[in-house]
Amino acid sequence: MNPKRRDRLRDAAIEVLAAAGGRGLTHRAVDAQAGVPAGTTKNYFPTRESLLAAAAERCLEHYRDVRAAVAPPADRDGLVALLRSLLEDVAGPGRARLLAYLELQAEAARKPALAAVLDPIAAGDFAGLELAQRAAGLPVTPERAAAVTLALHAAIPHLLSGGPATLAAAGLDDLDAFVHGVLEAVYGAG
Amino acid sequence: MNPKRRDRLRDAAIEVLAAAGGRGLTHRAVDAQAGVPAGTTKNYFPTRESLLAAAAERCLEHYRDVRAAVAPPADRDGLVALLRSLLEDVAGPGRARLLAYLELQAEAARKPALAAVLDPIAAGDFAGLELAQRAAGLPVTPERAAAVTLALHAAIPHLLSGGPATLAAAGLDDLDAFVHGVLEAVYGAG
Repeated sequence: MNPKRRDRLRDAAIEVLAAAGGRGLTHRAVDAQAGVPAGTTKNYFPTRESLLAAAAERCLEHYRDVRAAVAPPADRDGLVALLRSLLEDVAGPGRARLLAYLELQAEAARKPALAAVLDPIAAGDFAGLELAQRAAGLPVTPERAAAVTLALHAAIPHLLSGGPATLAAAGLDDLDAFVHGVLEAVYGAG
Repeated sequence: MNPKRRDRLRDAAIEVLAAAGGRGLTHRAVDAQAGVPAGTTKNYFPTRESLLAAAAERCLEHYRDVRAAVAPPADRDGLVALLRSLLEDVAGPGRARLLAYLELQAEAARKPALAAVLDPIAAGDFAGLELAQRAAGLPVTPERAAAVTLALHAAIPHLLSGGPATLAAAGLDDLDAFVHGVLEAVYGAG
């Protein structure tokens, strides 16, 4: 097994999930997306379950890379910039990965083994964003930190698939105002 | 076209989506789930797109029925009870419908026509829960009201498919404490 090829297949599985949903995720579609000979994906990930788990593990690795690259914000403005950049990523380079994550999350409701792979991503987000809020000097409590993280988690599917009325009602038609609004709701005016 | 049979098919589509995902949603599977002769679903909803839209419209109708049945809370305790009952529903009778909604939301990211059908559900939730917070006598601002609604929206997929670390990190292993915590984060101690 070639680790580079393995990563390429796992990236391709994420692209296929994002573009065609759980319904489109077949070994053949991943072969085609990765530009490898037919049968390669089946060789690396023999079952559909192992292919789903591979995509989920790739999401977890990406998530850890992103988290490792984030510097703790020095103040509230830095936190605003961090949260805004996380949300901007949803409509930008992160879209495929987050859409694949949404598909995996739905599948995980029926597959506990898949839920176990995804568990550290969402759990790590609560811990990481609480640390970021502390680093920014805010008067953090576990409940306040969780409220901010929950707002971000809710924003992602709305940004991926919400209609205009939903985006307006959530305040997600203006990401900078959205982030300021969430922090103001939880921590008061800055 | 028989309206009762139409509703039965739409309910069956929701059950199939919840049990087998977008991948399992076929006309044949809906026929089987509804216990009707093969070909019936195809007769009512000729394309896969029309079947998805039918399931989404059924979700919207259910949502409106639930909303119409909810009395505005008289005070903060009433609001706590309302929010807790909404979350308890995720693990209870509402599970299939919410899981179907999660599948539809993922599909909607690729299908704007489907996003348009779902749009009033999420948008209506922001408006409805803001009214509930006002009725409960809380010092509502649009940002505070949205923060509470976002916490609920984020809680649903975590409850449907979250692993134990995620549920613990979000505080969703105790729904009563979760709701109190969200309100305390946004409105201060009650």
